Amino acid sequence: MARRIGHPWVARIRQSALVSALPSADLVDGLVAALGGDASRVSAGDSDRDLHSEDMTFHHPVRPDVVVYPTATHEVSAVLALADRHRVPVTPFGAGSSLEGHVIPVAGGISIDLTRMDRIVAVEPENLLAVVQAGVTRNALNRAAGEHGLQFPVDPGADATLGGMAATNASGTTTVRYGKMRAQVLALEAVLPGGRVIRTGSHAPKTSAGYDLTSLLVGSEGTLAVITALTLRLHGIPEHVVAARISFPTLDAAVRCAVAAVSVGAGVTRIELVDTLNMTAINLYSGTSYPEVPCLLVEAAGTRASVDGDLELVLALAEAEGAVDVAHERAAEARSRLWSARHDAAYSWSQLWPGMRHCSTDTCVPVSQLAGAVALAQAELERLGLRGGILGHVGDGNFHVGVTLDPDDAEEVSRWHQLSDALVRDALARGGTCTGEHGIGLGKVGALALEHPDLLPLYRGVKGVFDPHGIMNPGKVVPGDADNPASG
Amino acid sequence: MARRIGHPWVARIRQSALVSALPSADLVDGLVAALGGDASRVSAGDSDRDLHSEDMTFHHPVRPDVVVYPTATHEVSAVLALADRHRVPVTPFGAGSSLEGHVIPVAGGISIDLTRMDRIVAVEPENLLAVVQAGVTRNALNRAAGEHGLQFPVDPGADATLGGMAATNASGTTTVRYGKMRAQVLALEAVLPGGRVIRTGSHAPKTSAGYDLTSLLVGSEGTLAVITALTLRLHGIPEHVVAARISFPTLDAAVRCAVAAVSVGAGVTRIELVDTLNMTAINLYSGTSYPEVPCLLVEAAGTRASVDGDLELVLALAEAEGAVDVAHERAAEARSRLWSARHDAAYSWSQLWPGMRHCSTDTCVPVSQLAGAVALAQAELERLGLRGGILGHVGDGNFHVGVTLDPDDAEEVSRWHQLSDALVRDALARGGTCTGEHGIGLGKVGALALEHPDLLPLYRGVKGVFDPHGIMNPGKVVPGDADNPASG
Repeated sequence: MARRIGHPWVARIRQSALVSALPSADLVDGLVAALGGDASRVSAGDSDRDLHSEDMTFHHPVRPDVVVYPTATHEVSAVLALADRHRVPVTPFGAGSSLEGHVIPVAGGISIDLTRMDRIVAVEPENLLAVVQAGVTRNALNRAAGEHGLQFPVDPGADATLGGMAATNASGTTTVRYGKMRAQVLALEAVLPGGRVIRTGSHAPKTSAGYDLTSLLVGSEGTLAVITALTLRLHGIPEHVVAARISFPTLDAAVRCAVAAVSVGAGVTRIELVDTLNMTAINLYSGTSYPEVPCLLVEAAGTRASVDGDLELVLALAEAEGAVDVAHERAAEARSRLWSARHDAAYSWSQLWPGMRHCSTDTCVPVSQLAGAVALAQAELERLGLRGGILGHVGDGNFHVGVTLDPDDAEEVSRWHQLSDALVRDALARGGTCTGEHGIGLGKVGALALEHPDLLPLYRGVKGVFDPHGIMNPGKVVPGDADNPASG
Repeated sequence: MARRIGHPWVARIRQSALVSALPSADLVDGLVAALGGDASRVSAGDSDRDLHSEDMTFHHPVRPDVVVYPTATHEVSAVLALADRHRVPVTPFGAGSSLEGHVIPVAGGISIDLTRMDRIVAVEPENLLAVVQAGVTRNALNRAAGEHGLQFPVDPGADATLGGMAATNASGTTTVRYGKMRAQVLALEAVLPGGRVIRTGSHAPKTSAGYDLTSLLVGSEGTLAVITALTLRLHGIPEHVVAARISFPTLDAAVRCAVAAVSVGAGVTRIELVDTLNMTAINLYSGTSYPEVPCLLVEAAGTRASVDGDLELVLALAEAEGAVDVAHERAAEARSRLWSARHDAAYSWSQLWPGMRHCSTDTCVPVSQLAGAVALAQAELERLGLRGGILGHVGDGNFHVGVTLDPDDAEEVSRWHQLSDALVRDALARGGTCTGEHGIGLGKVGALALEHPDLLPLYRGVKGVFDPHGIMNPGKVVPGDADNPASG
């Protein structure tokens, strides 16, 4: 057995026509030429290959044959021209914070690391937009935008690259107010397999010109093209922000409060569910001493009057659900500590169970179905005897069951798969989706086929239009017929 | 010469393989069978064919061979199966309020009128969504949603069908606050050529599952599939709404005020520019007596405190730009009259110049470029000696030059084309787009090729995936190589 979760189609991809006919040394030489002769940005060394073999999950690592570090679009173009000509697989790599194995080059080939394309090309405060290269991280953009009183609000927790966030249509704690990554992308520059550079969208706030290839590339997970630059909406930094930590007697009461708040239109910017186990892990990891009970972490932002109104509404609903404790965090530092602690929840598990790996479900349901979906998740965790806790962007109907497990324990891994499968089937039965924000990657290929069996032929057709030779991130989203376990 | 603007590629489409090999009588028989034997919903009569030969513009009318009125998805499926088998062109038709010739069946064939698919399937207030058949109009949905204190805010003026609004990615006066049609569509049911029914998206508030075919179908203008049902976001009706009519000494001052308001983040729900000529036409048509000078019509909505704050901000900016008059409309009836008058601006032109036809440009630019773009439009209008006025959703950088002309006057028509072309080229030079909300249809096929020449091969590839035989709304968005005048 593989040390971690193996992918049955990896071996088949390895044997397929996708693997380069180019000897490794020739490939490296070609890539050095593509990068203007700079051999320091092309590496076939073990360390670079290991660093680009895995993401933050326990998906089975696979090394690329070679890692390249382009700094400009024309270099990406030259790499993709070479790769397409010789049928070498290409897998884009950003911060490596993916949660479904997107960046694992399961067919080997080239890992194209975009982190050195980290230039903020322009910030246009009057147009509420910025133009960035794909390797700029969200925190870097926020520092630049902040000088103009603006922010880029999408917040998946990790300091991911903006190209990677677009590729997975990332979202996070602020989505309930600002929407997902797709809502922020006005225009993209991308490179097609073969090397052609395309530009979608415009700098206008809206457009109805042609098919929406911008939205198609957002969420395509590197399977259609390599995103090299993005034009992104910016938003004003609210003048007044207050966070509240509300403790509940039960998880169900917390969920009901959140759903009620969203349904009546409370203008919150964040409304996060944290269960008892996660509060405990947070306290251990972050040195905080928050009550270890189910909580909602709520943030309201705007004018002082609107913030007070929104919080008042949420607190009235919380009281009706028997909230046992409310703590306000008005100071920027205390708020920052609260959200850092929330974001570190996943990391904090490593303190509780050293040596274990972490994985996370990501289902999303209509909010009226949320309490039922969370209750089922709790029951399944208990039935399967897994170490898991629940975190949720509950304003969006999206919640995560984080599970820690021993990747060498095949029986435990099997129970994880049972949990994940049960939650996906339950979400679909409730009119929801198998992934709210983590994307398909490797881990949800089967779930996508369950959710949209009728769309798979169209997905494959679209993939074929952009990537006729199937070199782009093979094995992800819509594995080819030859390497799709579902069709094998 | 044709009576109205002719399309050079219409004749070629007529002669191409697209035209049905099926004799007309057999086609009608087949369609009656597809509609369960109900001959009353299949018409080859002159009156029905005339009604489905044109939209609201002066694009040259072309009759379909036959009009069908399905009431259920399975009937649309049967129609598309028949049409695909016999290569009969199919053009979807909603309210007929299109502004770029989308619904004109330039290749003849079947006009599929969706207005009898007018069932509101569900309103789920707790999930802030509704499910509707494609023929439901926005006003009908608003009546149903209003019973729950909710609204569907996208407002293109006309009481368009929601299927048609999705097909063109419509927007309008409220986009500055709520976004375009694409932002409201959670899920679609659509029928592919050949008759297969697909379902995209889910009822969850967000998803990252697979390629975003929902966003791809939105704005595809009936060239990929027939949208039969939509799951749409609803929004709370704000507790407090105030409209203000602000008069300015010059158009430029009004534009600068609007741009400043958006840039500083004033939370307006509408901010509309109306020039002197349009104010005059509105007064004549609507019996109002508004000052006949350049105006901004502004609406703020929310709590009383937030509305007061937002309006205060806009009025301070207006004062700085030398605003000469401010009138508040707090009563619902007065606000309704104001927005009706604004929406009737286009119709009101028929009063000024009876017998003439109306057409409208639709460029959209980054807001910092708006004053320059509007100034160029004014100069071009004057240079070309056209009867035209300017209206704008200026919060989005989107403005329309409405021109009235005699479609029999070839020279005047030629000047209109010069105006449209100049504005498109100017918008593109400013980083904008050839269409903010009207779409491509027939009228902007050349403009799309100017804006996104690099994307045309991908558009054609995507079209081929959905519609391999090219039966769906031929001649629109991406005419096939055979019938594209640009490639002829």
